[in-house]
Amino acid sequence: MLIKVVNPNTTWSMTATIEQCARAVAGPGTLVEAVSPTMGPASIESHVDEALSVPGILEQITLGEQQGVDGYVIACFGDPGLDAAREAATGPVVGIAEAAMHAASFLGRGFSVVTTLGRTTGRAWDLAEHYGFARQCRGVHACEIPVLELETDPDARKIITEACRDAALQDGSDAIVLGCAGMADLCEHISSEIGMPVVDGVAAATLFVQSLVTMGLRTGKTGEFARPLPKQYSGLLSAFGARE
Amino acid sequence: MLIKVVNPNTTWSMTATIEQCARAVAGPGTLVEAVSPTMGPASIESHVDEALSVPGILEQITLGEQQGVDGYVIACFGDPGLDAAREAATGPVVGIAEAAMHAASFLGRGFSVVTTLGRTTGRAWDLAEHYGFARQCRGVHACEIPVLELETDPDARKIITEACRDAALQDGSDAIVLGCAGMADLCEHISSEIGMPVVDGVAAATLFVQSLVTMGLRTGKTGEFARPLPKQYSGLLSAFGARE
Amino acid sequence: MLIKVVNPNTTWSMTATIEQCARAVAGPGTLVEAVSPTMGPASIESHVDEALSVPGILEQITLGEQQGVDGYVIACFGDPGLDAAREAATGPVVGIAEAAMHAASFLGRGFSVVTTLGRTTGRAWDLAEHYGFARQCRGVHACEIPVLELETDPDARKIITEACRDAALQDGSDAIVLGCAGMADLCEHISSEIGMPVVDGVAAATLFVQSLVTMGLRTGKTGEFARPLPKQYSGLLSAFGARE
Amino acid sequence: MLIKVVNPNTTWSMTATIEQCARAVAGPGTLVEAVSPTMGPASIESHVDEALSVPGILEQITLGEQQGVDGYVIACFGDPGLDAAREAATGPVVGIAEAAMHAASFLGRGFSVVTTLGRTTGRAWDLAEHYGFARQCRGVHACEIPVLELETDPDARKIITEACRDAALQDGSDAIVLGCAGMADLCEHISSEIGMPVVDGVAAATLFVQSLVTMGLRTGKTGEFARPLPKQYSGLLSAFGARE
Amino acid sequence: MLIKVVNPNTTWSMTATIEQCARAVAGPGTLVEAVSPTMGPASIESHVDEALSVPGILEQITLGEQQGVDGYVIACFGDPGLDAAREAATGPVVGIAEAAMHAASFLGRGFSVVTTLGRTTGRAWDLAEHYGFARQCRGVHACEIPVLELETDPDARKIITEACRDAALQDGSDAIVLGCAGMADLCEHISSEIGMPVVDGVAAATLFVQSLVTMGLRTGKTGEFARPLPKQYSGLLSAFGARE
Amino acid sequence: MLIKVVNPNTTWSMTATIEQCARAVAGPGTLVEAVSPTMGPASIESHVDEALSVPGILEQITLGEQQGVDGYVIACFGDPGLDAAREAATGPVVGIAEAAMHAASFLGRGFSVVTTLGRTTGRAWDLAEHYGFARQCRGVHACEIPVLELETDPDARKIITEACRDAALQDGSDAIVLGCAGMADLCEHISSEIGMPVVDGVAAATLFVQSLVTMGLRTGKTGEFARPLPKQYSGLLSAFGARE
Repeated sequence: MLIKVVNPNTTWSMTATIEQCARAVAGPGTLVEAVSPTMGPASIESHVDEALSVPGILEQITLGEQQGVDGYVIACFGDPGLDAAREAATGPVVGIAEAAMHAASFLGRGFSVVTTLGRTTGRAWDLAEHYGFARQCRGVHACEIPVLELETDPDARKIITEACRDAALQDGSDAIVLGCAGMADLCEHISSEIGMPVVDGVAAATLFVQSLVTMGLRTGKTGEFARPLPKQYSGLLSAFGARE
Repeated sequence: MLIKVVNPNTTWSMTATIEQCARAVAGPGTLVEAVSPTMGPASIESHVDEALSVPGILEQITLGEQQGVDGYVIACFGDPGLDAAREAATGPVVGIAEAAMHAASFLGRGFSVVTTLGRTTGRAWDLAEHYGFARQCRGVHACEIPVLELETDPDARKIITEACRDAALQDGSDAIVLGCAGMADLCEHISSEIGMPVVDGVAAATLFVQSLVTMGLRTGKTGEFARPLPKQYSGLLSAFGARE
Repeated sequence: MLIKVVNPNTTWSMTATIEQCARAVAGPGTLVEAVSPTMGPASIESHVDEALSVPGILEQITLGEQQGVDGYVIACFGDPGLDAAREAATGPVVGIAEAAMHAASFLGRGFSVVTTLGRTTGRAWDLAEHYGFARQCRGVHACEIPVLELETDPDARKIITEACRDAALQDGSDAIVLGCAGMADLCEHISSEIGMPVVDGVAAATLFVQSLVTMGLRTGKTGEFARPLPKQYSGLLSAFGARE
Repeated sequence: MLIKVVNPNTTWSMTATIEQCARAVAGPGTLVEAVSPTMGPASIESHVDEALSVPGILEQITLGEQQGVDGYVIACFGDPGLDAAREAATGPVVGIAEAAMHAASFLGRGFSVVTTLGRTTGRAWDLAEHYGFARQCRGVHACEIPVLELETDPDARKIITEACRDAALQDGSDAIVLGCAGMADLCEHISSEIGMPVVDGVAAATLFVQSLVTMGLRTGKTGEFARPLPKQYSGLLSAFGARE
Repeated sequence: MLIKVVNPNTTWSMTATIEQCARAVAGPGTLVEAVSPTMGPASIESHVDEALSVPGILEQITLGEQQGVDGYVIACFGDPGLDAAREAATGPVVGIAEAAMHAASFLGRGFSVVTTLGRTTGRAWDLAEHYGFARQCRGVHACEIPVLELETDPDARKIITEACRDAALQDGSDAIVLGCAGMADLCEHISSEIGMPVVDGVAAATLFVQSLVTMGLRTGKTGEFARPLPKQYSGLLSAFGARE
Repeated sequence: MLIKVVNPNTTWSMTATIEQCARAVAGPGTLVEAVSPTMGPASIESHVDEALSVPGILEQITLGEQQGVDGYVIACFGDPGLDAAREAATGPVVGIAEAAMHAASFLGRGFSVVTTLGRTTGRAWDLAEHYGFARQCRGVHACEIPVLELETDPDARKIITEACRDAALQDGSDAIVLGCAGMADLCEHISSEIGMPVVDGVAAATLFVQSLVTMGLRTGKTGEFARPLPKQYSGLLSAFGARE
């Protein structure tokens, strides 16, 4: 089984970490490949960044379809382009915010999200509402560390750990959801520090895609998510025009 | 006052109709300019089309900011890129699905949406939920006419009119919302045929943007919708990298 | 186009301010007339006040119908009698709480309401729920200044400005909604002080009614909001009995 | 214990039936008095009727306070003026739609409402939403018999019985709620005909008020429902001005 | 009329208090009998306790059916086994959390629950959601006194009273709901101390069952709550096997 | 890794089928053991059956804790005793309705449930609401085949297949959820017949538990789901009294 993990930003050092975290949980028969698109933002911290990451994600899905990929993970906590990716792909597609929230909802009554910048908390709430977890999601908290500084800020691990501890206390939550793919490698450390389950969406999404593929389950293609209609594209996006 | 209406598809004949409908309702002091982006799909009938229309929309917002535009309309019923556009623009931005649903909610207890292809009804429901109109939106109905055939199918007007009549009856609605910018010029005809208020989102969005600008109201910029962060973009999207 | 703004209380000095604020935003072709009913409470600060203001509002709608009014604004933040007014009027009717909440929802993800007395916050929440803005409305805050003291209390402007600033901070809101028609003239001042969009419902409702009339949109009359049935009225209300 | 049942319309023959139904269930120590206001509509079948019934209801509450009434029932299925009545009264106040929906929710998972005219179904849905029974209320069905013809139409009983049977079948409901005080005396007959629990709000509200009074429970007066503020009233309503 | 109040725990001193509180409000023609099951936990303070109390509750319903019981109260604030009891019983069944929340919702806009241990607050929120009172229930507060210490801790009354006062203030509530059958006898004291309505679910449930029986209303038996199907039971539960 | 699948009914032939379906999807390092409790109903088709299955489930969890089980599946579509099981177990616990609904929500916008008897559809809706999938769950349909006849009725496969096809068409769903553990072995057949994804909760729950264990995620034990308090149990249930 081949799972393709798309990191929608173009920072390959983060892609390498994501790949490592996904591979660490994948089953013995599962091959995991993580990629960044050839176009897109260096990090995703605004609605504009998120919107502009989607063409690159779809480019990777298109490539993946040629490579015989069995399922896809979108490894950005805003789950950008998820509906479009489900339409374009044959196999299942799961976003990491979606996967983390689903996983956390199995672990108790309520979870707290700890994310990077405060300006991204609105999207996290949007997703919680959209996926049906408005009640389970008890709080979305920002630690105000920009995405790319997760790798470089020597205090990042400590700050995020404390933000997780505070969030759980304040919200009375049973579990923590890490709100950025760039936090994937901190999951185990934080969990042992704060004594609570901490969910990394990269691992969760990889395992949920693996589970769906194992069951032979794919996105339903009889309605809204049928393959996109043949369409003429103009300009920079004309590469997508030859799709069917 | 200058209002820029962005038709996110690249079919300029539709853009011309949209411009006409927007100008027909704008106040004497309001200049309306409708455009299509230089890149994007010829029509928007899937999640992929919608996703790939967003870079072109943002390109037009970027241009608009240089032109001194006071407010923007996104003239596609999926309201693609609305959050990103609000972030990128100084003045207010309103989507036509959003505007039509708001307008219809002033006209009674419930409305029905009549749109093009069945595969787009999921997005309409999404938006109704997201904007808070899950209760007011009583049904989303497809007439199964593709967007570009709205202009060419000689029976389109008749089919859509009957779909509106049926939808109102079935849902017990007080008003009809037309679910595609390409139906804007049918609004008056259908309303007089079926004896009910029929809302065209192009007109509604134009007037709501005009209203917001008149009141001096713009998107709040103190939090989530602050101007996007400076960011490095790779590949085809690097044109956006010089944004700030 | 003639828009009638009904201030449901009988304090004509407030009616004059309301008229001024409505006229300040109306288009060149729009005539705005503001009135108070001949019967009703001097100010509306309780459910009883609100209930007893409705006959006077309906009296003014009845008069308006004879005057050829094109649309109506109900200028009290509890939107008293809105359903009944929609039934009685031919043209569209918009309440100021309704209009302000709709306007604010175009400006970001969440708004805060700042109103007069704490005992009125329940109604504001009711309306937010009813209109579909339970998610967007992040807080309703009272400054505990009675309605009629808005005009006379020399500290009112300062107190309300600070209440708005605090509300925005506490709720993380993108915009403020002023929760009383008597605050209409403070809107611009507060906005410039706190650096955020501040919505006055009088202006918003006037412009939304103007927009609806421009589009030829009226309350749907095929169902619940059809003209009221002929009915015999007894007692003080028998004046309404001759309605049809 | 003295319970006052206010029939908000001025049709005393209906008031007599209501009184009979309320007395039939009241405990041995409970005195029930049913009244119609001196002013108001002959029947309530529109939002205008409902709005114009409220001053008369409040007049009866004011009188009741002088009479030492322990609790009140508002006997119209739109529960007109309920918030205002709770503010004005010392003892508890329950509306018949409210009571019937509460009672029905004890009898299974879902109920259906069968009411008079189709134009009143919107208000029934409003109330179901507002009281929290949006999920339990599975349908609101009109039998299209005007309120005053309930007493005169020889086929009324049969038509309503069949409407109840159809509603239960269509909605898969566990119980029926009768949507008009004028149907109170049909309750037992319909229940035995269709073999399901049928709830009359007059009986339910009388018993719930009796229960609340027995427990010493009254409307909370520390916030929103504190006694209304002293207020100057103009015109026909000035009778209310001397309230405090 | 015979009402059976089932205290699902096996602490008969608490059962005696519950019986006293139920009898104190029952009408002259109503006989109230309170019992504990022969099997079950000494107190209910966890999901496991709650689950293991249900067989004993159903045993008492089975006995009650033979005794000609007219209606049942389940006197534990988690309302354990309520759906099963409704299925098994001929007459109406009401839980005390359910009854208390219904009663409190008649007394204003919002109520606060004050309960025993923090670990039980999740179930209280569950029930509020399930019954439709998510909006009315403004807070669930624990005083961290274990159930059985309610009878023995000399400070219990004081601690709970202060917890009620704090809850009302913090939540801005109109009424308090006591979150444990073991608090039933504190109701009047707390109410007089804090000057607000305080609802005891034992009294409320007893009176609501009495009201339903008076109206001849029983659980609907045409669908989900029809008598349970004949079934073979193994092991310790085989006593239930002879049910039909 | 050891996963224990508890079939809450005592029909071991069904337990064998369930074990086979769970093992078919488990990873190479995962050992799956399916059991029935020693006490409980032969099948679960009512609220009473469901309630009486819980002690047996908890008995199996208690045993499992001694056996070093890593995670549990509750294999009945009502997810009986799920909260109690989470409290009692060290490792994660997932119900099959929960798992199937989560899995289906990854496959499109909406799913339909096809279950056994109509009287069980209420519980399915309850669970959909409780887990957050009220919007995604578009219909719950009964094929009116009793649970134990799934194994013996020669037409069962055909009837259920047609019920799935009809449900998908009527609801416009993207996926089908099978509403009974006894249907687990029909999943692949139905999917190939109707050309849509069909989710079996037994497989889904097994894989989700395996995923959670792989990630080191367990139920949060810092609050509501902490180990149950030591407690004295009377009667038939005293076996549970020695728990800690």
